[in-house]
Amino acid sequence: MSKPILTVVKIGGNVIDHKAMLLGFLETFASIPAPKVLIHGGGKVATQVSAEMGITAKMVNGRRITDANTLRIVTMVYGGLLNKQIVAGLQAFHCPAIGMTGADGNIIQAHKRQHPEIDFGYVGDVDQVNGDALNRLLSAGFCPVIAPLTHDGQGTLLNTNADTIAAETAIALSHFQPVRFVYCFEKKGLLTDITDENSVVAKVALSEIETLKANGTISDGMIPKVDNIAYALRSGVSEVLLCHAEDLSGILSGKSIGGTIFTKE
Amino acid sequence: MSKPILTVVKIGGNVIDHKAMLLGFLETFASIPAPKVLIHGGGKVATQVSAEMGITAKMVNGRRITDANTLRIVTMVYGGLLNKQIVAGLQAFHCPAIGMTGADGNIIQAHKRQHPEIDFGYVGDVDQVNGDALNRLLSAGFCPVIAPLTHDGQGTLLNTNADTIAAETAIALSHFQPVRFVYCFEKKGLLTDITDENSVVAKVALSEIETLKANGTISDGMIPKVDNIAYALRSGVSEVLLCHAEDLSGILSGKSIGGTIFTKE
Repeated sequence: MSKPILTVVKIGGNVIDHKAMLLGFLETFASIPAPKVLIHGGGKVATQVSAEMGITAKMVNGRRITDANTLRIVTMVYGGLLNKQIVAGLQAFHCPAIGMTGADGNIIQAHKRQHPEIDFGYVGDVDQVNGDALNRLLSAGFCPVIAPLTHDGQGTLLNTNADTIAAETAIALSHFQPVRFVYCFEKKGLLTDITDENSVVAKVALSEIETLKANGTISDGMIPKVDNIAYALRSGVSEVLLCHAEDLSGILSGKSIGGTIFTKE
Repeated sequence: MSKPILTVVKIGGNVIDHKAMLLGFLETFASIPAPKVLIHGGGKVATQVSAEMGITAKMVNGRRITDANTLRIVTMVYGGLLNKQIVAGLQAFHCPAIGMTGADGNIIQAHKRQHPEIDFGYVGDVDQVNGDALNRLLSAGFCPVIAPLTHDGQGTLLNTNADTIAAETAIALSHFQPVRFVYCFEKKGLLTDITDENSVVAKVALSEIETLKANGTISDGMIPKVDNIAYALRSGVSEVLLCHAEDLSGILSGKSIGGTIFTKE
């Protein structure tokens, strides 16, 4: 018997920051057959909490810096508030969610970002996702829910990009079973016309990406997203669905079409 | 082959609030042979963060109330900051820690406290510790680290007493294997003279507790602690060690004597 497909879903601020949308998404996610993993971003809550604590974001050359105070806040907000609200919400839909940072179960080791000019502070670049540990959790019947935090293995947590964590997690788990990576964002998919949400490209093969970049279909903010998707496909992930979280239920149940499916061929 | 003894350790504010003491404790805890579970209390950090956010503790009839704002803070501090700092610290000592609230893996369901006169707000009284889920995590090679938060199964987190969580967790796991419960607090053990840390009672049998209450050896703040210990012993826990976290290393390694051992007989 072939192994069941594992679904890795990533959601960002556009879902997290809207209570009703988040609740709808959690119900949809709970309905996805196991095994599955959820990775969530940070959203605006950390900024709100910082403001309440009178701490303003530290910027150097226009880049946001994670100083000790900011690390404390993102650990509280991403690892505590958001992660636990998502987990408690999923449990209400009978999903066996278990919330984690990269330190928990040593699932994601990282190192402090090295940059010739800017000290980003407590920002982590991923060294390794521990697919074995995640796989043991999945085999034990749990659904990991991962916050955008990693650790350096020496006791320090690090603020880490959720898109990177999602792609690296999907890749690490693809060594154990086929993985479908669902990347939710604020649009309905890859659009041929950025102003028209009905212009979704249904399917993109890995080999077509360079052409779509050259003709401008993939541009600006879509470039790093698609590069991340292409990296996941080249590194073992079976397919990537790029869509809006609100369309996910219909797409997964086959009741509606939508989103862009990225495939290896 | 008989099952190995499982060690459940509880630490409170006196350890959590002192960085050097916490670090020393984490090294000791990491050296305890698996399987093991750590339960931590809240300490003073939530009060500090509340003050930074300009939120003052709400009191009714001298009792602290967990209103929505306070729940948000304890979720951030207990479930995020403290839990993740402990987990990252344990990982540095190669302990496969996985941080959890009662919502994670649905390990502890609770209900909002009912009281005829006082609305305690988001305070949870434990209904059930899911020993099966914890046992699956232990069997998968992880070390659960539990924050003093539970959930109601309907999406709401609840602030819950760490001593209760520790005792109920030790009891639930005792159905799977013999359990030693290590209860760390600010004294060296049960003292015959509260002013003399050298007056530790070495051993107390369950049957002796009422006598020790009657003669005043167990009094004041010790009464609920010892009642909790007695409850754990009556409900399946093999033995309880009451000690100071700083003495734990010596006691467990047999290098020094210390602490009070509570036994069934």
